[in-house]
Amino acid sequence: MKRLRFSVIGAISASGPCRAASTTVPAPHAPGGPPRPRTLTLQSMNPCVRAVEYAVRGPIVCRAGELERELLGGIKKPFSEVIKANIGDAHAMGQQPITFLRQVVALCTYPDLLDNPHFPEDAKQRASRILQGCGGQSLGSYSASQGVNCIREDVAMYIERRDGGVPADPDNIYLTTGASDGIASILKILVSGGGKSRTGVMIPIPQYPLYSAAISELGAVQVNYYLDEDNCWALDVNELHRALKAAKEYCSPKVLCIINPGNPTGQVQSRRCIEDVIHFAWEENLFLLADEVYQDNVYPEDCQFHSFKKVLYEMGPEYFNNVELASFHSTSKGYMGECGYRGGYMEVINLHPEIREQLLKMLSVRLCPPVSGQAAMDVVVNPPRPEEESYEQFIREKETVLSTLATKAKLTEDLFNKVPGIQCNPLQGAMYAFPRIFIPLKAIQIAKDHEMAPDMFYCMRLLEETGICVVPGSGFGQRDGTYHFRMTILPPAEKLVVLLEKVKAFHMKFLEEYS
Amino acid sequence: MKRLRFSVIGAISASGPCRAASTTVPAPHAPGGPPRPRTLTLQSMNPCVRAVEYAVRGPIVCRAGELERELLGGIKKPFSEVIKANIGDAHAMGQQPITFLRQVVALCTYPDLLDNPHFPEDAKQRASRILQGCGGQSLGSYSASQGVNCIREDVAMYIERRDGGVPADPDNIYLTTGASDGIASILKILVSGGGKSRTGVMIPIPQYPLYSAAISELGAVQVNYYLDEDNCWALDVNELHRALKAAKEYCSPKVLCIINPGNPTGQVQSRRCIEDVIHFAWEENLFLLADEVYQDNVYPEDCQFHSFKKVLYEMGPEYFNNVELASFHSTSKGYMGECGYRGGYMEVINLHPEIREQLLKMLSVRLCPPVSGQAAMDVVVNPPRPEEESYEQFIREKETVLSTLATKAKLTEDLFNKVPGIQCNPLQGAMYAFPRIFIPLKAIQIAKDHEMAPDMFYCMRLLEETGICVVPGSGFGQRDGTYHFRMTILPPAEKLVVLLEKVKAFHMKFLEEYS
Repeated sequence: MKRLRFSVIGAISASGPCRAASTTVPAPHAPGGPPRPRTLTLQSMNPCVRAVEYAVRGPIVCRAGELERELLGGIKKPFSEVIKANIGDAHAMGQQPITFLRQVVALCTYPDLLDNPHFPEDAKQRASRILQGCGGQSLGSYSASQGVNCIREDVAMYIERRDGGVPADPDNIYLTTGASDGIASILKILVSGGGKSRTGVMIPIPQYPLYSAAISELGAVQVNYYLDEDNCWALDVNELHRALKAAKEYCSPKVLCIINPGNPTGQVQSRRCIEDVIHFAWEENLFLLADEVYQDNVYPEDCQFHSFKKVLYEMGPEYFNNVELASFHSTSKGYMGECGYRGGYMEVINLHPEIREQLLKMLSVRLCPPVSGQAAMDVVVNPPRPEEESYEQFIREKETVLSTLATKAKLTEDLFNKVPGIQCNPLQGAMYAFPRIFIPLKAIQIAKDHEMAPDMFYCMRLLEETGICVVPGSGFGQRDGTYHFRMTILPPAEKLVVLLEKVKAFHMKFLEEYS
Repeated sequence: MKRLRFSVIGAISASGPCRAASTTVPAPHAPGGPPRPRTLTLQSMNPCVRAVEYAVRGPIVCRAGELERELLGGIKKPFSEVIKANIGDAHAMGQQPITFLRQVVALCTYPDLLDNPHFPEDAKQRASRILQGCGGQSLGSYSASQGVNCIREDVAMYIERRDGGVPADPDNIYLTTGASDGIASILKILVSGGGKSRTGVMIPIPQYPLYSAAISELGAVQVNYYLDEDNCWALDVNELHRALKAAKEYCSPKVLCIINPGNPTGQVQSRRCIEDVIHFAWEENLFLLADEVYQDNVYPEDCQFHSFKKVLYEMGPEYFNNVELASFHSTSKGYMGECGYRGGYMEVINLHPEIREQLLKMLSVRLCPPVSGQAAMDVVVNPPRPEEESYEQFIREKETVLSTLATKAKLTEDLFNKVPGIQCNPLQGAMYAFPRIFIPLKAIQIAKDHEMAPDMFYCMRLLEETGICVVPGSGFGQRDGTYHFRMTILPPAEKLVVLLEKVKAFHMKFLEEYS
């Protein structure tokens, strides 16, 4: 793995994956003889895994970790703190958990608390019901591989409420270990063929790199369709047609992945756009994957989340009975931000009954998703109702999180757009800004001389000079010759303003230095 | 999927995977037109996934679920309850959680409880330390992909204590989503090549079917070595040589998997045997996988668990510095039985530093293992110490579980061996009996007429007549012409005795019927 060090910017890791956190990985040496070659090497390992890239936790994050340790070790830096704005990790940024969710999970964990008068009755009822659904009434039992029955029922009811009564069947709900796990599972079952028959998977560019990573691991073919940056990152169905046609030359496109609201791009798709996409999938016999983990994170008044499932239903039975659709949700995003629980679900409709059996078999090998994550998911889909005692506090907490995010989304867009050489589309949804940055030719040349993407060079410099860790656009994909970075808007508002001002100052200095 | 129904034995599912739990999977039908063919079908799906078999949750378990629903629906059966002895799911069988573990996890979940005087100080200290290691001091933050640092440190200290001081490096510890996840991850990175160069993975027969399933999914080559049933299921290194030599004709064997204590076979490997295996791996440049999830489940006085890591160390630096070894542990087994938390760890030594980077990159795509499972793992490796207030209760609970298991292991062996046509090796470890059963020719013929493994036929009959759900030996692998089943010994002792007596009565009747 190439590692670059040059004095202009201090220690910089190139595009390879992370080095060991500590320096204690010893070179093999044997007092009993010369070291022997390893069985498992870069040459002998799984080439599909070797090809995987995952920028969100890539070299820049490793360097951020190193800098944190250097700061702790007393080494002077131009900053006093590393701010990890690389990942949508709400609680790590100080967001407080939703009280009701944690009460329910704590009650499930330690049922002696069901006698504790400090816990509200509605939380106790939720916990008792979940425990009734668990073997031996314990979170420590395996659940069914598809998830605890009563939680799947709650998910189905949530979807029906969300979609204005469109029916949802608990048998089509599969609880997952976060949305990533569900997406990777569905892709795994979908991929087949070799050569020109190899499964092609259409993904947006920019994309969340789970998709490219899963496609690499499976040895499938990544088929890029580009979102339209000049039009608020909208999806244009003509671009889908172009991408599909081109892909048919070299693979067998079978899957279309949509991220709505967009990650990293933050756009919220219009109902019309979703109709167009569904019609396209129907016409071309594509299996649809709708990544809707940011469904609660929609900010402007004039934007609204429409689920693919609902639009599909409203387009009539020819669509609703035929288009194969898997849609995904999670405990990690929304207003809960419970990433650590690895809770999620997928709803899969129009699956061939034989495939449903195959999917259940495949899921059963890993036994079940974490049951505490399932319990957390239950609270997400079944929060306190207006007549319940925890409702008021719940709504207050939820609305505080979402309104703060809305404020920060607007603030970030406005501030970025005041900086010469930075252009930022409106953050309609999700929790990231993905501004386009102008990088001067001189900087591009230096980066290329070191076999580094220009925006990686930019982000590394930003990190070294300000302690702010963001992810280069090249980790998500972008049109050639354009450069971006992804930054979460999760830091507390006061901190976010300071951070944005620092980025601005850095950017001005960077332009000056390399122009 | 073939489904057999014949009146002799009632409704029987064949060897295919589970049908949908409910009957609501509709045949596609479109009021808007005739149903269209599906994109994802048995023919078009991933053939490696199609090839997967996983008996522990296979058709017999589905049928058990159906029977439970039939009982609930008031349908008369020759039994009043279905007993799921198919899986090592302790809490589902009534085992109580270890109080201290749940206290710590509850405190981490809902830190307000840190002020609650009913929780012991040592649990509060553990919880506070874990939360200190979490971003924003919340279980809801993503952890490092390798796991929370302080938990990895506790794992390393546990291994050092267990192995009498053999050094363990936290950087070699990776927390996982249960042991299954760790095993599948290591196999995934190891598999490469095509044709005769395709990676061969040596596994014991009988095996735990996670191995065959993961090998199928990866399109790797399963290389069987047979355990010696006549010698208490011992591993004979000559058999390893035989299997390896045969395999080299058609693949490239690179990995050797060991399960110790054995699953489903329950043998505990002698120190001498482990030395032989390590020498063999060293000689043949094989990557060693040691599945040691039952390390706490060893029952006879004269049996002792020896970790592969410790024996490797004691064999001297030529081995300890060269043999690539991944060993696995879990929260699910032992005396804790916390399957639902999906907690686990792997220790991987002598990994090439470049592969370490690749492994970290691969793990980072799934972000992190569930943090509540990591917290549970921490308690497993860092239980109350003698000077702490929770020690007495902890030890009492732990020893009750383990001594009860030891009693049940002996009782099961003794009872099975009193039944004509059943032979059962001593249950030295783990939590299963894997008795050999004599199946009369007439029954074998009927089973074969219906394309069913004879022991599947036997187990289905057992289920239909007694409500007892066990897994046929064919799901684990066995020498041709021999038949077995796997049954957990987890039911409470009184219930286990009744269950064993029922199996005995069934077996006698079965012999009579088909002889």
